Amino acid sequence: MNDYQLLRIPGPTPIPPTVQQAMMKTMIGHRDQETKELLQRIQPGLKSIFGTKEEVVTLAGSGTAGLEAAVVNTVSPEDEVLVVVTGSFGDRFAKICEAYHLQVKRVEYEWGKALIPDEIKTYLTNNPSIKAVFATYCETSTGVLNPIQQLTKAVKEVSDALVIVDGVSCVGAVETKLDEWQIDVCVTGSQKALMLPPGLVFIAASKKAWNIIEKNYQPRFYLDLRKYRSSIQQDSTPFTPALSLLFGLEQSLQLLHSEGLETVYQRHQLMKDMTRAAFRALDIPLLTNDQDASPTVTAIKPDDFKADVLRKKLKQDFGLVLAGGQNHLKGNIFRIGHMGYCTPADVLQTISCIELGLQQIGKQINLGDGVKAAQVTYLQEGSS
Amino acid sequence: MNDYQLLRIPGPTPIPPTVQQAMMKTMIGHRDQETKELLQRIQPGLKSIFGTKEEVVTLAGSGTAGLEAAVVNTVSPEDEVLVVVTGSFGDRFAKICEAYHLQVKRVEYEWGKALIPDEIKTYLTNNPSIKAVFATYCETSTGVLNPIQQLTKAVKEVSDALVIVDGVSCVGAVETKLDEWQIDVCVTGSQKALMLPPGLVFIAASKKAWNIIEKNYQPRFYLDLRKYRSSIQQDSTPFTPALSLLFGLEQSLQLLHSEGLETVYQRHQLMKDMTRAAFRALDIPLLTNDQDASPTVTAIKPDDFKADVLRKKLKQDFGLVLAGGQNHLKGNIFRIGHMGYCTPADVLQTISCIELGLQQIGKQINLGDGVKAAQVTYLQEGSS
Repeated sequence: MNDYQLLRIPGPTPIPPTVQQAMMKTMIGHRDQETKELLQRIQPGLKSIFGTKEEVVTLAGSGTAGLEAAVVNTVSPEDEVLVVVTGSFGDRFAKICEAYHLQVKRVEYEWGKALIPDEIKTYLTNNPSIKAVFATYCETSTGVLNPIQQLTKAVKEVSDALVIVDGVSCVGAVETKLDEWQIDVCVTGSQKALMLPPGLVFIAASKKAWNIIEKNYQPRFYLDLRKYRSSIQQDSTPFTPALSLLFGLEQSLQLLHSEGLETVYQRHQLMKDMTRAAFRALDIPLLTNDQDASPTVTAIKPDDFKADVLRKKLKQDFGLVLAGGQNHLKGNIFRIGHMGYCTPADVLQTISCIELGLQQIGKQINLGDGVKAAQVTYLQEGSS
Repeated sequence: MNDYQLLRIPGPTPIPPTVQQAMMKTMIGHRDQETKELLQRIQPGLKSIFGTKEEVVTLAGSGTAGLEAAVVNTVSPEDEVLVVVTGSFGDRFAKICEAYHLQVKRVEYEWGKALIPDEIKTYLTNNPSIKAVFATYCETSTGVLNPIQQLTKAVKEVSDALVIVDGVSCVGAVETKLDEWQIDVCVTGSQKALMLPPGLVFIAASKKAWNIIEKNYQPRFYLDLRKYRSSIQQDSTPFTPALSLLFGLEQSLQLLHSEGLETVYQRHQLMKDMTRAAFRALDIPLLTNDQDASPTVTAIKPDDFKADVLRKKLKQDFGLVLAGGQNHLKGNIFRIGHMGYCTPADVLQTISCIELGLQQIGKQINLGDGVKAAQVTYLQEGSS
C-alpha cells in the first residue's frame, strides 16, 4: 500500500492530525497582533516542559543550531570546557566547541553507557578552570538517558561551571526541571517529543547563564540569544519566525498539557519498558542496561542477524521505519523510537511486525513471545 | 467575518492551497531514500530561480541566518568590506559584518533611492583593499529594486571583490542570473516569492566564491556552507532539514515552473505597474521613482493622511494587512506586498479596499479612479 508508513525512528516523529491541521492556518504577518498573541499563548507551555520560570526562546533552525547557540553565547575562545561524550551527539557538542577554538577536554564513555556524575565531579575538582560542562540528556545514538539531575548536583558541589544540556531527543517526554536541578542551559528541538516537523529549536537558560550570556562578547548574530530574549519579553522575535511550525506548536503543547506532563512521562516510561521486555523475551540483546535506558528510544544490538537486513525487510513489507547505528555502531544496532505521537498500542504493532520480519530473514524466534512480554508489562504498570 | 484575511505585506506571503496540502504529507525519516529523492527533485528548480548551474544549499532558518552565512563563510575578521545601504536590510547586512569585527565601510543612499553602480565602481577604485561588496537586491523596507546586474558588472571591472547579494524579497519574482551576471553569493528565503511559510533559506554561490568558502577558516558550524555543499552533492543535508517546508517547496517550485519563470516575472512587473498607476491616479505620492521600483513591493508616502490610521482601518474592515514603515520611515509610509501567491485580480481587490479605507478615514478621493488606472494598465500590458 502506498502512502502508508510507520515512522519509528527517534525523530522526526509522526505528526498528530490536529497539529497538521493547526499548521494549515492562514499565514499571518509576523509583526501583527496575531503573532504577538500566539507567542504569548505558547510561552507558558514551553516553560513547563523545561521546568523553568525563565523565558524560553525559539529559533528557526535544526537542533544543531540550538547546540551551537548554547556554545557561542556562553563561552569565548580559549575558555576551557568539558564535554561529556556518551555517543554521537556528545561528539557533536565537542566538535562545535572545537570549531570555536575553545580548549576542549573530553570525558568519554563507552557508547551505550551513561555518564557517571562522581567521575565528572572528580574531574572538575582536578581541573578547576573548566568554565562549562556540556552533556547530552538523551543520547539519541545509543538510547541512553544520562542522569542530568545528578550530574548537575555533582558539578555544582565543586565548581562554578555552567551545566549545558542537549535535551533534543527527550525534553517533553521525560521530566526536566531546569530551575530545581540548576541546569544552566537546555536545548530541545521540534521534531522529537514535541510532535512537530523539524525546523524549530528551543532554549531555556538559568538566571546565572543569562547574566553570562548578556556579558559575552563572542561574535554572533542570528544565534545571539540576547536578541531573542529581549524580543520575547515583548512577545516578539528578532527575525521572521517559522510561523506554520508555531501554529503547530501551540496545538502540540495543548496536547501535552491536556494529557498532563506526568502522564506523558509515564507513557514514555511504559513504552520503553514494553519494548525492552519484548526483546528480552525474544532473547535479542539490548545495547544499554535498564538503569541507563531512555524512555524515548531503544537500541538493540543483535548478535546473530544483521540489523540492516531486518530494517530493510520491515520497511519493504510493513512500511515500518527503524533507525540504524551511527559511526562505529553503523550496521551493528538498530534503534526504535517510541516518542511523541506514539502509544503503547503502537509499540505492540512495532514489536509484532519486528517478530514477523525476524522470522522472514531467517532468525529463529517464537512468534508472539515479544508481544506477550510487552502486553504483560502493560498490564503490570500501564493499566491504571 | 472570522478566518478571513488578505495578507498583502512583503512577506510572509499567502500559501497556495496545493502547497498547504503538500506540507501535510506524512513525516518521513530525514536519512531515508524518500528524503534523498525529494532533495534531488528540488535541486533543478532551485538552480533555475537563481540562474546557476552550481549547487544551491538549503538551511533551516530565517533569512537573516542566510545573510549571516553569506558573511561568515566568505570573509574573516579585519577584512575590509563594503556594504551598500539603501534601507533597513542593507543596514542589517552591515550590522552582521560589524558583529564579526570586519572593517565595514558603508556607502549609504537615501531610503527610497537605488544604489548607483558607477559610484560603487569609483569607491572600489579608490579603495582597492575591499574584499567583498554586500548589497540588497530588493530593499524590502523601501520597495527599491537595486540594479544588481549593473552593480556586479561595475564591481568586476575594477575589483576582485566578491559581490554578495541579499535576494530575500525578490528571487523567484524577478530575473536573477547568478552565473551570467557573475554574482558571487545570493541568498533568498522561503516566505516571499517562493510562497512558503518562513523557515527555509537558500544560498547559491559562484565557483569563485566556493573556492574562497572552502579555504575560509573563520569559526562556524551550523552556518558552515561547506557542510551543506558536500551533503547536497550526495542528495543529503548535514543537519535535520525542515521536512514539511521541503514538501511544500517541491510544490511551490512546480507552480513557478509550470507557469514559466518569464511569465512569473512579467506577472510581478504588471502587479507593480498596476499598483503604481493606481496611486498616481489617486494623487498619493509613491516613495520611489519608476526606475527604482521593485516588482514585489510598493511603498507609498502619503502627505495628507496618516499611513498607520489607514492600515488600522483596512485591517479592521476588510482583513487587509499592509506593512508599515521601518526605522525613520515608521508611521510615514505604508507598503503593499504584491509577490508570490498574488495576481492582478488581487491587486484590483487591494486597491479597491484601499480606496474605501481612504474615504472612510476622511481623505478626499474619487472612488474608482485608482482601480480604473490599474485596469487600464492591465489592458495595456497584461492582456496578452
